[in-house]
Amino acid sequence: MNLTMIEAAAARMAGHVRRTPLLNAPLLDKAVGRRVLVKAECLQVTGSFKARGGWSAVSALPEAARKRGVIAYSSGNHAQGVAYAAARHGAPCVILMPSDAPQVKIANTSAYGAEVVLYDRATQDRDAIGARLSADRGLTLVKPFDDPQVIAGQGTVGLELAEQAKEAGVTAAPVFVCSGGGGLASGIALALEAKTPVLQVRTAEPQGFDDMARSLASGQRQRNAASTGSICDAILTPSPGELTLPILQRLAGPGAVVTDDQALQAMALAFTHLRIVLEPGGAVALAAALFGPDLPETVIAVATGGNVDPATFAMALDRFA
Amino acid sequence: MNLTMIEAAAARMAGHVRRTPLLNAPLLDKAVGRRVLVKAECLQVTGSFKARGGWSAVSALPEAARKRGVIAYSSGNHAQGVAYAAARHGAPCVILMPSDAPQVKIANTSAYGAEVVLYDRATQDRDAIGARLSADRGLTLVKPFDDPQVIAGQGTVGLELAEQAKEAGVTAAPVFVCSGGGGLASGIALALEAKTPVLQVRTAEPQGFDDMARSLASGQRQRNAASTGSICDAILTPSPGELTLPILQRLAGPGAVVTDDQALQAMALAFTHLRIVLEPGGAVALAAALFGPDLPETVIAVATGGNVDPATFAMALDRFA
Repeated sequence: MNLTMIEAAAARMAGHVRRTPLLNAPLLDKAVGRRVLVKAECLQVTGSFKARGGWSAVSALPEAARKRGVIAYSSGNHAQGVAYAAARHGAPCVILMPSDAPQVKIANTSAYGAEVVLYDRATQDRDAIGARLSADRGLTLVKPFDDPQVIAGQGTVGLELAEQAKEAGVTAAPVFVCSGGGGLASGIALALEAKTPVLQVRTAEPQGFDDMARSLASGQRQRNAASTGSICDAILTPSPGELTLPILQRLAGPGAVVTDDQALQAMALAFTHLRIVLEPGGAVALAAALFGPDLPETVIAVATGGNVDPATFAMALDRFA
Repeated sequence: MNLTMIEAAAARMAGHVRRTPLLNAPLLDKAVGRRVLVKAECLQVTGSFKARGGWSAVSALPEAARKRGVIAYSSGNHAQGVAYAAARHGAPCVILMPSDAPQVKIANTSAYGAEVVLYDRATQDRDAIGARLSADRGLTLVKPFDDPQVIAGQGTVGLELAEQAKEAGVTAAPVFVCSGGGGLASGIALALEAKTPVLQVRTAEPQGFDDMARSLASGQRQRNAASTGSICDAILTPSPGELTLPILQRLAGPGAVVTDDQALQAMALAFTHLRIVLEPGGAVALAAALFGPDLPETVIAVATGGNVDPATFAMALDRFA
C-alpha cells in the first residue's frame, strides 16, 4: 500500500463516493474548551466510510471476476458499502450478516440489491459459510479491512482530510479514527504520512474491545475476550488486521479507549451542535476527541458512520441531549 | 438586489460561513421513486442558513454602526445567525426572542454571546420593545428577511446550488425552499436566475401558514390567520416581505404546502437516509419534494435548519422512522 494506490482509488471513485465535509461548531468548541473538527463520513453515500473501500475493491477487480460477483462478511456498514459498489458495477453480491445486526443495516443492504445471508454470531462459523458460497459461485471475497485495495479506498479519507485541515489552518492535531480491524485508520495514516505528517492518527475503540490499543502497546496482535457486549456494533472486530497493524505501529499514536456512555454522549453532542446522525461505533473517535485525557488545542475526529436504529438514537438523546 | 450583491456577500463570508454539501441517498431515491437532492443548510455553522444573511448584514455595516451594535427579532435561527456574526465582528448584539421559542435556540443564542430579551408572543409588542432598545443604544436592526443585504446573503445558497447541481448532472429541477418571509427563497431565485435558469424556486410552507403560497397566487401580500399552531416554529412569519414577494412573483413557481406530519416524516427520512438532523420548519421543503403532487424525475430541496429540541426529534423518529 502506498500513496499511488490511494490516489488511484480516489480517481476510480470520483462521482460515486462523496467528498465529505470537515465540520465544526463554535458552540461545541466552547463547550469542550478546544477546537474540534469532525470529518463527517456519516454523510457518505451509504452512511459510512465503507463505501470507499467497497468501491475501491470492486472497481479494482478484473472484469471476469466482477461478473461472477462478490461476497462480504459484515455487521452492516461494510455490507452496505460493498452492496452499493457491486450494484453500481452490475456485479452480483452476497452479504453474510450476523442475525443480531441492526435492522436498519440489514434492510438497507437488501435494498441496495444484495442477497443477504444471516448467520448466528454465537453458534455458526461465518468463514465456513462464506467459503462454501464463494466456491460454489466463484465469488470474490471483499475483506472488511485486511486487503490492500480496501485500505487504499479508506485512505482517500486521509487525502481529503489533509486538504481540509490545511484550509482550516490546522498546523498540528491528532486524528482520532474509530477502529475495528484498522482498515480506515491505516489507510488514513498512509495518506497523512505522505501529505501532511503534522496530523497523526490515533485509533479509538470501545472499552472491553480495545484489541488495537493493546496490540499497539505490545507490538503483537491481541484479541478481544468477547465478540458482543458493547453498543458499538460496527467496530467489535476480534483483532487488528495483519496488514493494518504494522502500518499503525509505524505511524499511529497510542490507541484511545472510550466507554459506551461516552460514545452515546458524543452522539448527543453531534446531534445538538453538528446536526449529524452518528451510530455508537461511529461516534467513538469523536468521544475520544471530546473526553480523552491530555488533548491538545485542536483535535480532529473521523465520525465514521450514521446507520443507527431510531430507538438507539432516541436513547442517546434521552440520556445525554 | 442583484447578482453582484450576492457575489459580494459570498466574498465577505468566505472562511466564516460553510459551503454546505448537496446530499443524496440511493435508498431515499429508491423509496420515493425519483432523484432527490438535498442542500444541507442544517450543516451550516449555526445550524441554519441564517448565518449567511446575518453575516452579510453585519459585515456590510459601516464600522461606527457595527461598534454601537445590532439588534434582531427571531424565534431562533436568525437570532443565532446574527449573534454568531456579531460576535465574530466584535459587535454588541441584542436578540428579542419569543418566550416560547425552542429552549435549544434560546440557549445557543446566549452562548454565542448575545444579550437575549424574551417577550410574550401573544401579549407583547415585539416591534415596540425593539424600537425602544434600538433608540436607547443606537443599535442597528437586522431584519430577518426584508433587507437587501440579508437577501443577498441567503442568495449565496443559490450560487453554491447552481454549481453543485451542474456537477450532479441536473438539467432541470424545481428547488423547494422553506419559506417564512421569503428571504432565502428570493435570494436563491435571484442567484439561480443569473446562473442557471433551468432550476426554478418553489416556496414550501406548513398548512395553515401558507401566506406565501396565497400571496403568489393572488398577487397581493396575504397574512396568516394565526401566529402559532404549527410545529414548524422557524417559519411562522405573518406575511411575505415587501422586497421578497415581487422577486418571487417574477421568478418562483406556485407555492407548495405540506402538513406538520409530512414535515415530521421528512425529518425521519432524512435521519434514516441522509443522516442529518432537521428541525420541523427546516424539513418542510424536503416534505414538499418527497410528498408533493406532480413532481418531476429530479427534485431539489433546501433543508434549511437543524436546531431542534431532542424531544421533538425523538417524537418524529417514534412516529415515522
